[in-house]
Amino acid sequence: MPTLHLDLGSRSYPICIGPGLLGQRDVFAPHIIAGQKVMVVTNTTVAPLYLERTLAGLTDFQCDHVILPDGEQYKTLETLDTIFTALLNQRHDRSTTLIALGGGVIGDLTGFAAASYQRGVNFIQIPTTLLAQVDSSVGGKTGVNHPLGKNMIGAFYQPQLVLADTATLNTLPERELGAGIAEVIKYGLIRDAEFFVWLEQNIDALRARDPAALSYAIERSCRNKAEVVARDERESGERALLNFGHTFGHAIETGLGYGVWLHGEAIAAGMALAADLSRRQGWLSGADQQRIIDLLTRARLPTQAPAALDSERLLELMAVDKKVSSGKLRFILLKAIGHAVISADFDARMLQTTLDTCRTEQPLALAPA
Amino acid sequence: MPTLHLDLGSRSYPICIGPGLLGQRDVFAPHIIAGQKVMVVTNTTVAPLYLERTLAGLTDFQCDHVILPDGEQYKTLETLDTIFTALLNQRHDRSTTLIALGGGVIGDLTGFAAASYQRGVNFIQIPTTLLAQVDSSVGGKTGVNHPLGKNMIGAFYQPQLVLADTATLNTLPERELGAGIAEVIKYGLIRDAEFFVWLEQNIDALRARDPAALSYAIERSCRNKAEVVARDERESGERALLNFGHTFGHAIETGLGYGVWLHGEAIAAGMALAADLSRRQGWLSGADQQRIIDLLTRARLPTQAPAALDSERLLELMAVDKKVSSGKLRFILLKAIGHAVISADFDARMLQTTLDTCRTEQPLALAPA
Repeated sequence: MPTLHLDLGSRSYPICIGPGLLGQRDVFAPHIIAGQKVMVVTNTTVAPLYLERTLAGLTDFQCDHVILPDGEQYKTLETLDTIFTALLNQRHDRSTTLIALGGGVIGDLTGFAAASYQRGVNFIQIPTTLLAQVDSSVGGKTGVNHPLGKNMIGAFYQPQLVLADTATLNTLPERELGAGIAEVIKYGLIRDAEFFVWLEQNIDALRARDPAALSYAIERSCRNKAEVVARDERESGERALLNFGHTFGHAIETGLGYGVWLHGEAIAAGMALAADLSRRQGWLSGADQQRIIDLLTRARLPTQAPAALDSERLLELMAVDKKVSSGKLRFILLKAIGHAVISADFDARMLQTTLDTCRTEQPLALAPA
Repeated sequence: MPTLHLDLGSRSYPICIGPGLLGQRDVFAPHIIAGQKVMVVTNTTVAPLYLERTLAGLTDFQCDHVILPDGEQYKTLETLDTIFTALLNQRHDRSTTLIALGGGVIGDLTGFAAASYQRGVNFIQIPTTLLAQVDSSVGGKTGVNHPLGKNMIGAFYQPQLVLADTATLNTLPERELGAGIAEVIKYGLIRDAEFFVWLEQNIDALRARDPAALSYAIERSCRNKAEVVARDERESGERALLNFGHTFGHAIETGLGYGVWLHGEAIAAGMALAADLSRRQGWLSGADQQRIIDLLTRARLPTQAPAALDSERLLELMAVDKKVSSGKLRFILLKAIGHAVISADFDARMLQTTLDTCRTEQPLALAPA
């Protein structure tokens, strides 16, 4: 089983990747305080599939669980309170360990609950979606949404362990697989041109859930993310590059209402828009823009914003985004495939053209749900 | 003006104490990012008294404010959301600074809002009650209550500056002054016997709001707290001593309903109960227990639990308290005046006797409200 280490001094932790890790008690035991309680946080979709197997690895501990409704629309302060109530009802104290069993929403909610419960308790991430395995479970970003903006409330808080059981991807719906692949492609685009070429060669294998291709893509994605996070944990610089496609993508997600498009789908369109703006700036070649659109299309991902959101609405939504620094809109743009930069230095008319051009009337139906 | 420094490495900050500091722009300016926004968070009681004067010191910045209802019952996730909404409506980004203008509730709420807004922004504490000036504004404990327990949700998060304007104490109601004095007495009891003697000599001057006595008591209290916090920021050991009287006190507060007794009043009774249990354990002399009761009484503070809460109910409430470690109830007890220890080694029958004995039918009416 490949194991990476995220190197953050006293807050370092291992990332274990492989098939069938769930339920192996020797994987968990070193990361939970002996004799203490554990609270597994999961949702109504994941619980029937993986809760029992997870609990089988935790029989050495007093193990409670809480099952939340499934969906980005539940990533709220209110749902967070449900977790706190469960912890207090079951009398969990400061030595408890929270385990996030699910996708990015469960990971973000549980991580922030762990950061805030009694001012901080231990937690373990068990991401069960590709998106969570390659992105949200690694790096310590936790939090919830606010009606006025995504991920506006949260904490930087690192887990004790990330455990990515690749076998859980076998039950992942097609659209969610695609959403994860969007984030995998992101690593190629922002800092790993060689990986992008590998993806061009292996995208069909990934979509077909070839186990070896998935394992390789997860490990290489996590390695990329771990390198970036280790150098810039609190996102004062380089880490912001991981938000490639997110300024556009968050605006699409918020504009449509959380959950209409999956996060990864919105990010895919956002990356295509960022590539378009990069090309208009004269940074990215037309040929490379086409390679990006081709790869996203083969991954069955959107490459345009939905027509329902006009450029005015998208600009308004982006203004609230947290990457607005000092009131100035900034984008992560591409100098080339594998080389992203943060830039406030873009032409407003070009942005307008990108927003006006890259829109589609077609409903999102690229992959069967 | 006396200035202390809380030494926490990269998170160190000054504590400025003195009359008339509010509204002095040179005090604020070094601690706010130039050209950025500021959000003052205060409540309906403090705003008419000190908001204008505070804003006068902040004219170099784009300054917004939010006025919350006053009271411990508003120290909730819901009120926190009010602050987030104000920040998002006014488009505050990651470079904003939150300023807590008020007592402990405002400080705890604002600090946790600062810790959580966009995963952490700067903040400044301007405590306007004695309790907040000597205790809650220093040390980085922030958070909100949960219906099932006090301070159960929060973060350790340090401000950039604490500014204690002693002139604000002139408008403090009598009961709130007493509540602050309770925490001042706590420092004498747990680690500063010499200060306890000073308090025995100066308690009447403090109650009469003698400015020199108040300044001295605040500075010495903050110095004690800063020393403890610098050695144990995240409360893995010594810092827990600052919770002297709090296990009993929180049970009283929760049992009566937040706000019926002031926090400091509940802590005063809690300290008297802890002293009683310490004496029954054979650690504290009867004479010293009497000195403690005498000082609290001269400070017009309660020294018994309210009769409405019987020992069974108090024990139940204490079991949920976060100082329950590994399911075992622990108390901070006194070996002598000026020497506190954390102990799980107490006699359950003695605890029962303390809870049964130290109760009064009298309503709390020790100081005019």
